[in-house]
Amino acid sequence: MDINSDVVAAIEARLGSKYVKKGVDAEKYLEDFWGRARGSTLCVVLPGNTEEVSAVLFICQASGVAVFPQGGNTSTCLGAVPDGTGRSIVLSLSRMNRIISADPLDGSITAEAGCVLADIQQAAASVGRFFPLSLGAEGSCQIGGNVSTNAGGTSVLRYGNTRDLVLGMEVVLPDGRIWNGLRTLRKNNTGYDLKHLFIGAEGSLGIVTAVSLKLFPSLSSLTSALIAFDDIAHLTAITEPLRRTFDTSIIAMELISGSELRIVKRIFPDITFPFDERNGWFLLVDIATDQDVSVNDSLESALAEAMEDSRIADVVVSVNESQRATFWRLRHSVTESHKKYGMGMSHDIAVPIARIPEFLQVAQRKVEGSFPEAEIAVVGHVGDGNLHYNVIFEKSRWDRIPDQAQTRKDVFKAIYDIAVGMNGTFSAEHGIGALHVAEMRSYKSTVELDMMKGIKALFDPKNIMNPGRVIPR
Amino acid sequence: MDINSDVVAAIEARLGSKYVKKGVDAEKYLEDFWGRARGSTLCVVLPGNTEEVSAVLFICQASGVAVFPQGGNTSTCLGAVPDGTGRSIVLSLSRMNRIISADPLDGSITAEAGCVLADIQQAAASVGRFFPLSLGAEGSCQIGGNVSTNAGGTSVLRYGNTRDLVLGMEVVLPDGRIWNGLRTLRKNNTGYDLKHLFIGAEGSLGIVTAVSLKLFPSLSSLTSALIAFDDIAHLTAITEPLRRTFDTSIIAMELISGSELRIVKRIFPDITFPFDERNGWFLLVDIATDQDVSVNDSLESALAEAMEDSRIADVVVSVNESQRATFWRLRHSVTESHKKYGMGMSHDIAVPIARIPEFLQVAQRKVEGSFPEAEIAVVGHVGDGNLHYNVIFEKSRWDRIPDQAQTRKDVFKAIYDIAVGMNGTFSAEHGIGALHVAEMRSYKSTVELDMMKGIKALFDPKNIMNPGRVIPR
Repeated sequence: MDINSDVVAAIEARLGSKYVKKGVDAEKYLEDFWGRARGSTLCVVLPGNTEEVSAVLFICQASGVAVFPQGGNTSTCLGAVPDGTGRSIVLSLSRMNRIISADPLDGSITAEAGCVLADIQQAAASVGRFFPLSLGAEGSCQIGGNVSTNAGGTSVLRYGNTRDLVLGMEVVLPDGRIWNGLRTLRKNNTGYDLKHLFIGAEGSLGIVTAVSLKLFPSLSSLTSALIAFDDIAHLTAITEPLRRTFDTSIIAMELISGSELRIVKRIFPDITFPFDERNGWFLLVDIATDQDVSVNDSLESALAEAMEDSRIADVVVSVNESQRATFWRLRHSVTESHKKYGMGMSHDIAVPIARIPEFLQVAQRKVEGSFPEAEIAVVGHVGDGNLHYNVIFEKSRWDRIPDQAQTRKDVFKAIYDIAVGMNGTFSAEHGIGALHVAEMRSYKSTVELDMMKGIKALFDPKNIMNPGRVIPR
Repeated sequence: MDINSDVVAAIEARLGSKYVKKGVDAEKYLEDFWGRARGSTLCVVLPGNTEEVSAVLFICQASGVAVFPQGGNTSTCLGAVPDGTGRSIVLSLSRMNRIISADPLDGSITAEAGCVLADIQQAAASVGRFFPLSLGAEGSCQIGGNVSTNAGGTSVLRYGNTRDLVLGMEVVLPDGRIWNGLRTLRKNNTGYDLKHLFIGAEGSLGIVTAVSLKLFPSLSSLTSALIAFDDIAHLTAITEPLRRTFDTSIIAMELISGSELRIVKRIFPDITFPFDERNGWFLLVDIATDQDVSVNDSLESALAEAMEDSRIADVVVSVNESQRATFWRLRHSVTESHKKYGMGMSHDIAVPIARIPEFLQVAQRKVEGSFPEAEIAVVGHVGDGNLHYNVIFEKSRWDRIPDQAQTRKDVFKAIYDIAVGMNGTFSAEHGIGALHVAEMRSYKSTVELDMMKGIKALFDPKNIMNPGRVIPR
């Protein structure tokens, strides 16, 4: 028996072999959701409670076997599947999916890490409250993963990132010790706020096993406004009066390029959209409204100046929920369309909000100059300064590119250089995973990397937690 | 020349002797604002920029001389004055008081750490924006101190603690290296979010030299509602419909006990208040309103049920800004009144919001049973679950207490035990400083303390930054 089989045997003895998957049973945990990578593993472990997670980490720590924690396996940056060494275990939280409590008066919900995000939204609604985190993968991603990656999504503008929604957490440290930080306090100034270290650490410092989250009053109805405009330089002249007029009633503010509409309609011709294909831009704004108050008058007066100056081409306001859904269908069809259209390189960048138009202008010049075969398609959470900036080569054009790997590299570097040069970031909401470790090395200062490496070494001296992810060696 | 004089000489050589204060010139930096403690120091150093802070820390690191950073010296828990060894320096940020930039479209302001909070509020207003952090000491406290202590205040309910307002920061590490984390991004998932380590670290991990902060749309007008009620058990029946009706329009929600009104009026008989002295409770609620919409109708319908059930005794709504100021004058006179009235022991506790009534009932029974000479007076940010729970002995009664030191100790322990026993905290917004290090030892778990000690040792292995504060040895 080698040490690896000893580890598997010890875990089986503790959890029961039913919850230690190998071979075919382990397959689905090894493949990246987007099909970009496949890892291998000694076994996939499915603990049923925090004590079992603790026991597994204790065993792995003692033997130096690496642990790859996995939630819903929806990482966009190769953060959820194991590496190829096969000398690690995958620890899936999926059995730990209980809602522990939901307290409307306290405005909090406490859940195990393996709860699917949609189930948490549902549990909040069932006590008359609202949990605002919302993103494409909400039907399968797990809250532990959301917290560990500080997930963003479409309601950040009003409610903040996942980080802002976390009140407390329970964590199993790499040595198996359990930190019970499950509190629902709004204020607690007693030393370093440790939960913020684990939020966004992508499982590299320990495993989040349960979280307490903020709940909010339910929203009344939502109205969507779809604003068409031609010149990105006018963006602020449109968003600024909206922010001033509607303030926290704005729940989402998404930018969509005309080119994006064109690509989506090419792939899904049945998608209806209030506007014809056109150049320029669309702004999709969700506004929370009282049922008896029409949002039209306020919108009209907020946008009056921009309308008169012809900065706005047209505005359509949803008249009911089904029309609102139509507006959003385009937004939600983007990822799928890109996959089918060709080779898309998506950059999850952010820049200071006021510099979005400048970023778009500079990036466009760069792409047109250096990659004339490519198209640019943009969607993004523009109210947060976060854009998914897509450089796409239609299939037949991509096939003619001589050195594809180098071209990919060049495109990413070109766009990231521009964003970071504007005091922005190369990863706004998707995180690092295995995919962006090289960018961490390129774009982070030595001082910042040194602090991160020090923290990693402090919490995980044997580097067993998600090795090769997040922090460059 | 001993090593201490060498250190002073080296600092003088770098900064110029004008900015290195000794003897009489150093006096005002050594005494706690509340007059509870006096420290001593080799010298008080007033650097003019980040490079000078860096040079000073480099010198101190090399020689192992401790550094006590000081902002506006308004700490409530002995966090700002040096200890009594006299072998340390005080580093005052007060010369570093420039607003670096204020950008309304980006919704951000960047300022040096020594900026007085009121000046930041003012700079925000001058570009048509609102910086919401507001607290009693705002005319003298400095933003670096606010960030380092994660200050709370009266607008946390809507805008969050200082932590939630920070976008980026610049920090000089204990070894003199400068971390430039001055970004204004709303989203940035690139490794551990280091700023959250320094926020609330009370200068124990390095010195915050500049910060970037969120700005918000200006508020329209504010209306205050003052609600009188008898039984604390009905608190939620009053706050809950208010939250549901006004949501983010509620800026502040303060609880004041009738006993507090009695004490304040004893000390300041000229204070006018819409209610006579009475037992029971007052709720002071600030609501942001459009100038042309009266808040009365919404208030009436929100509170209708509680009114009918006689859970509410009376409601008064401010008709103009001057009446609103009258309502708040009572709230702002509390600290001063307690000082003059007798021996007040103030507990800055928090419990889960829904457990506030339970906490108040249990604590009252405990105080009445164990300290029958004492009165209870409560003010607090009830919307955040944070109460300043005051146990006060009127002067003449206090003079008759045989063992005063032991009584103080017993009172604090009794109240903290109750709060912590309800999954609450012994320090909600004031922090630890030198005053609450013993409570850190008593109430924090070993795992949590171990993590904090590890982080402290990682960043400050020689323990030169604010030694004896925050983290117990």
